Amino acid sequence: MTSPSPEPPVFPSAAAAMQAALALAEKAVGLSDPNPRVGCVIVDAQGHLLGQGHTQQAGGPHAEIMALRAARDAGHSLQGATVYVTLEPCAHFGRTAPCANALIEAGPAKVVAALEDPNPKVAGQGLAALRQAGIEVELGLMAEQAAELNIGFLHRMRTGRPFVRLKWASSLDGRTAHPDGHSQWITGDAARLDNQAWRRRAGAIVTGVGTVLADDPRLDVRALPTSLQPLRVVLDSQARTPPTARILLPPGQVLLLHAEGAHPVAALNAECRAIPRRKLGLDLEAVLAHLAEREINELHVEAGARLNGSWLAAGRVDELLIYQAPRLIGPGRACADLAAPLPLDEAHRWRWHEVQPIGTDLRLRLRSPHPSAKGNRASP
Amino acid sequence: MTSPSPEPPVFPSAAAAMQAALALAEKAVGLSDPNPRVGCVIVDAQGHLLGQGHTQQAGGPHAEIMALRAARDAGHSLQGATVYVTLEPCAHFGRTAPCANALIEAGPAKVVAALEDPNPKVAGQGLAALRQAGIEVELGLMAEQAAELNIGFLHRMRTGRPFVRLKWASSLDGRTAHPDGHSQWITGDAARLDNQAWRRRAGAIVTGVGTVLADDPRLDVRALPTSLQPLRVVLDSQARTPPTARILLPPGQVLLLHAEGAHPVAALNAECRAIPRRKLGLDLEAVLAHLAEREINELHVEAGARLNGSWLAAGRVDELLIYQAPRLIGPGRACADLAAPLPLDEAHRWRWHEVQPIGTDLRLRLRSPHPSAKGNRASP
Repeated sequence: MTSPSPEPPVFPSAAAAMQAALALAEKAVGLSDPNPRVGCVIVDAQGHLLGQGHTQQAGGPHAEIMALRAARDAGHSLQGATVYVTLEPCAHFGRTAPCANALIEAGPAKVVAALEDPNPKVAGQGLAALRQAGIEVELGLMAEQAAELNIGFLHRMRTGRPFVRLKWASSLDGRTAHPDGHSQWITGDAARLDNQAWRRRAGAIVTGVGTVLADDPRLDVRALPTSLQPLRVVLDSQARTPPTARILLPPGQVLLLHAEGAHPVAALNAECRAIPRRKLGLDLEAVLAHLAEREINELHVEAGARLNGSWLAAGRVDELLIYQAPRLIGPGRACADLAAPLPLDEAHRWRWHEVQPIGTDLRLRLRSPHPSAKGNRASP
Repeated sequence: MTSPSPEPPVFPSAAAAMQAALALAEKAVGLSDPNPRVGCVIVDAQGHLLGQGHTQQAGGPHAEIMALRAARDAGHSLQGATVYVTLEPCAHFGRTAPCANALIEAGPAKVVAALEDPNPKVAGQGLAALRQAGIEVELGLMAEQAAELNIGFLHRMRTGRPFVRLKWASSLDGRTAHPDGHSQWITGDAARLDNQAWRRRAGAIVTGVGTVLADDPRLDVRALPTSLQPLRVVLDSQARTPPTARILLPPGQVLLLHAEGAHPVAALNAECRAIPRRKLGLDLEAVLAHLAEREINELHVEAGARLNGSWLAAGRVDELLIYQAPRLIGPGRACADLAAPLPLDEAHRWRWHEVQPIGTDLRLRLRSPHPSAKGNRASP
């Protein structure tokens, strides 16, 4: 006896199909950077699945191509089909040929895109090309979820800077460590594992040389599977990182940013690069510009109070990711050193984005009160 | 035309009837102290409401008496009826005659009590008396909710001390005020109104003379209706409270606790009382013992970092009530001054009780990691 081939899944609604496309897009986390995380689901007029896919590694096929190939390999025609895709299909020749062209060739009846691609090379041109080819186009289904998944990519396209997520773990009284720096067990296992998922999302992880010297962290992704290791970036104006620092260990690349005139040890297993200085350290605007040039979408900052304070003072933190442990510490290290107290006004109130229990701790995510105050649109 | 008299409510289940009794018990908040908050609902065999009530002011009728009177006034017999009550009916002569006797006289078929009364004068004797009189008794329905409503009363009966709730409002980085003490608008209107509800629940509000001198607060209940004002208690070892302090203004009574040998101003509109000193201020055990003697159930502490630290160091905080504002402050006042950092071990992890958005802020409630470590059962 041979087992019958299983029935293909049926999506009862547009929302169900887009939800599936979003779930596929999630699979591109830790894989597709610096390309956006995109999922694609193609269904026939009755909602039967014809093909699906998600963005592969940079230079590999995009989600639409993966889904089109799957449909073709299964012998399906796209006549009357609807394509659900979490981001507007690209219309330009980048590392790959434009997806819009491939879709036009395949000839579905309709394309539903969650979100317009803010990439100035795309920006509506993909959808326009589809429309011109006589394909019905719908935009905006589950746009918010799709935007969250690619918050870094969208932010970089819109502002020319990575999206900066500043993480700390603190007690109820706002301490991140004992006065001697001891902080190993402020939060529980679940919070530490959760932080690994945020590291995996990031194109780069930034810390300061103070943390390297004090805690000697690796700052890699090791508790979760990933195809990419984020770039690890040490802000080290005087180039004091020793060759024995654990952050220099493989896997993954390390970028040491130092001030002009500083001389890193020659044998350092890291790319070294000079960055302009400002009063209290490296010029963070220059750091961001350099990382944007390297196509870093999400930047995950795990640093000490001093560097945290510098990022905040620069107004360049887009999201706070706080693991709050149900403890009191008393005397200890602060979350962020700021030179002067911030005003207690409306303009300095962050926006709650999420409050979520993680094991024995609480995860707080807040978005900046000045999301675009200093935002400059990237010149195309 | 006369309008027909409305049909009495019907409770489709025991849970619905007990839920209604709990809602009635809530009405005793700000009214019945130091007596527990109790609600009572009497239904016939079909679930029709026969009578209901809640505890009145101390010396006034208890919930059961209110409900029995309502049933009698409406001409209802209690034959076959079930009485739902959120706490075991009392069996002793206190300020009023025992409710158990009144219930036995009325003769319902069944009494369902959420919770046994831990008052050593009752402690199961009320239920035992009902059983002996041939009334069916059930215990434990919605016990947890009933216990929360009377957490202070239950705690005092079990330990001989009030339940201590320590409140502060802080920023994400654990600051309660600017370095100059300015803190007026850390949290929003909704959080300040919410705190009024916690004040109203409290038998007493405790602060330190430092807060009186710095902020000159009233610490009364004024944004919500209440029949009782909590006793306001100033811990003032050197009796420095000036006669002009706003906390001395009516309504409500003020208790000034000072060290032996200190001499409060004669004209002070407050009851003054000497309490033994300890190294860093008044002996908080003696404070608690005195307040328990005055039958204070819930104690609401609103103080500065120094007194907060003393309460925590004494291990006498049963609940932390934290309003967390979505702000960063930077340099500023701490939540609680502790002499040395607390260990990062399991034994110092508080238990999350509730996380709740309140307007633009987050309300965190946590219960002590050592709920009965120092607990002594009150001698009967």
